[in-house]
Amino acid sequence: MSDAIVPEDRLLSLATAALTAGGMTPPDAANAARVLVLADLFGLRTHGISRVPQYLDRVRLGGIDAAAKVEVTRVAPGLATVDGANGIGPLVGMRALEAAMEGARAAGIGAAFARGSNHFGPIAPYALIAAEAGFASIVASNATTTIAPWGGKDTRVGNNPFGIGVPNPGGDPVILDMALSVAARAKIRQFAARGEPMPEGWATDAEGRPTTDAAAALKGFLLPVGGHKGYGLAIMVDLLAGLLSGAAYLTRVRAWDKDPGVAQDLGHVFIAIDTSRLGSADWLRERMADFAAIIHDTPAADPASPVILPGEREMAAMHRQRRDGVRVAEDDLRKVEALAGQG
Amino acid sequence: MSDAIVPEDRLLSLATAALTAGGMTPPDAANAARVLVLADLFGLRTHGISRVPQYLDRVRLGGIDAAAKVEVTRVAPGLATVDGANGIGPLVGMRALEAAMEGARAAGIGAAFARGSNHFGPIAPYALIAAEAGFASIVASNATTTIAPWGGKDTRVGNNPFGIGVPNPGGDPVILDMALSVAARAKIRQFAARGEPMPEGWATDAEGRPTTDAAAALKGFLLPVGGHKGYGLAIMVDLLAGLLSGAAYLTRVRAWDKDPGVAQDLGHVFIAIDTSRLGSADWLRERMADFAAIIHDTPAADPASPVILPGEREMAAMHRQRRDGVRVAEDDLRKVEALAGQG
Repeated sequence: MSDAIVPEDRLLSLATAALTAGGMTPPDAANAARVLVLADLFGLRTHGISRVPQYLDRVRLGGIDAAAKVEVTRVAPGLATVDGANGIGPLVGMRALEAAMEGARAAGIGAAFARGSNHFGPIAPYALIAAEAGFASIVASNATTTIAPWGGKDTRVGNNPFGIGVPNPGGDPVILDMALSVAARAKIRQFAARGEPMPEGWATDAEGRPTTDAAAALKGFLLPVGGHKGYGLAIMVDLLAGLLSGAAYLTRVRAWDKDPGVAQDLGHVFIAIDTSRLGSADWLRERMADFAAIIHDTPAADPASPVILPGEREMAAMHRQRRDGVRVAEDDLRKVEALAGQG
Repeated sequence: MSDAIVPEDRLLSLATAALTAGGMTPPDAANAARVLVLADLFGLRTHGISRVPQYLDRVRLGGIDAAAKVEVTRVAPGLATVDGANGIGPLVGMRALEAAMEGARAAGIGAAFARGSNHFGPIAPYALIAAEAGFASIVASNATTTIAPWGGKDTRVGNNPFGIGVPNPGGDPVILDMALSVAARAKIRQFAARGEPMPEGWATDAEGRPTTDAAAALKGFLLPVGGHKGYGLAIMVDLLAGLLSGAAYLTRVRAWDKDPGVAQDLGHVFIAIDTSRLGSADWLRERMADFAAIIHDTPAADPASPVILPGEREMAAMHRQRRDGVRVAEDDLRKVEALAGQG
């Protein structure tokens, strides 16, 4: 499959037009498109504009309500709940992020707990938007179950994404955005499609036995990163993002790939911390520069691979692609153009 | 080494008396002792009253100030900074936890960023105290460097503890309390002391080469859980707990075991969320019961080892030891008795 290179603003207007044609209001569509295009800028193409056709397929099947009115309720100066009303995930995510930042402006720290949502894209775009406004952030979501509880042999926990971002007034923010499995299911699908064995330790078969057979692994479950530690973190993310938000959790989350026409009721949590209350921008700039220098000066095991900070690769890709254009799959681009009525 | 069984209240009064004799005010000593005795109740003996002699050794050497006046500054309704003034860690931790809960009472969510601190014990006690008051919590600390950045060959990141707790009005809270290395350094020390090889994947030698030689590993560095994911989480914890709190971070943290007479300037972060603003106790009780049932009903890979939630083992140990007495090492007990003037 060949790639296309598209300027950022063109990609943004295309994705916005496609989502608008799919039933979103233009401002809502622009809000959601911003998250997906940032994902492509970061090089996270599985979470970028390639999601637009998938989201709109589900809208057509009645699984997502593109015209949903997301409702934000402020329950305390720093705390909001968000009813996503089964809207497009990145829209719900943006509303929740804004509510968390509003709480942080008022109280120094703010949080928003969102329910009734769908796949909200990757975490890095939210962490970047927060960091650019001076907020450190903690963001997490639950997900369709693909992981077995540690010591169990049935998928009952999601590969829940979890991320943390810290602003850096003198350069790029540091952003961690990770899922809690050793490997992504999409990577296993690639091995299965090629008929190749996959690395050990990624997944088990349906009986819970370790396997390197990618096809068998797709019927089994993903292994959590760090064994019981990754399992524990996946549980805690679901408790915060799913249970406390009033959303579905664990096996009560519906699988979009099996039931595309049914509301998933995913949950997210967004926490924002106003770093300006902790010290001046100069103070933060100096400390971040010193912190980065200590890490970058670490002798590398392989001199060709210098030591980097979380998110550094993605931020470099963003700068490069903002300058040179964004690389997306030709096929994805054509689909989004068609949906935007520009095919 | 043989064990002693001591009633909880006796252990608490002994630890309080020892810390008071070491220079703390009686209320401060009681506050700190509560954290350490909870650690013993959970079965986390390396972080329990065995730390009292170690803390007081450092007080004697001028490395910790037992009489420190911990200072809490409220910088926003939900946000506080805490200057630990180089006090006993669990005292600084308790003050910061209280400040975070106070913020959450006012704003729905609260946080405290603590600097000038020392080893604050395990995270589970703080998460339990928060949960018993109705707060979900996120707690983390930085630590002396023992981990190499991913792809690097020098210890520049701490094995930073990170934890999350969620209250459960109908039973035990769910508490994750984890360090970010595959294995604890204390476990490697045990293999080295026995002259036995340790499992693969735990640590490297001083040159960054994987090793199963425990003695070589003690000169090398710990491997992070999940490779780059655990490294990333360790970095983010240090940015929140160390950098944003105004404490030392990375290699700027002093090693208490190498420089016991020098202030470490550790940092912690405590976030508390008032769950009563998100729903009623009945709502939370029902959802937690349903969540726990889904996990507990998972078919176990080994029928003799049922699937459990994070912290479940520690909570069971707490109930058992509250009833039957707390198991501590005879040797640790004698030392604390001697320090309490009751030897």
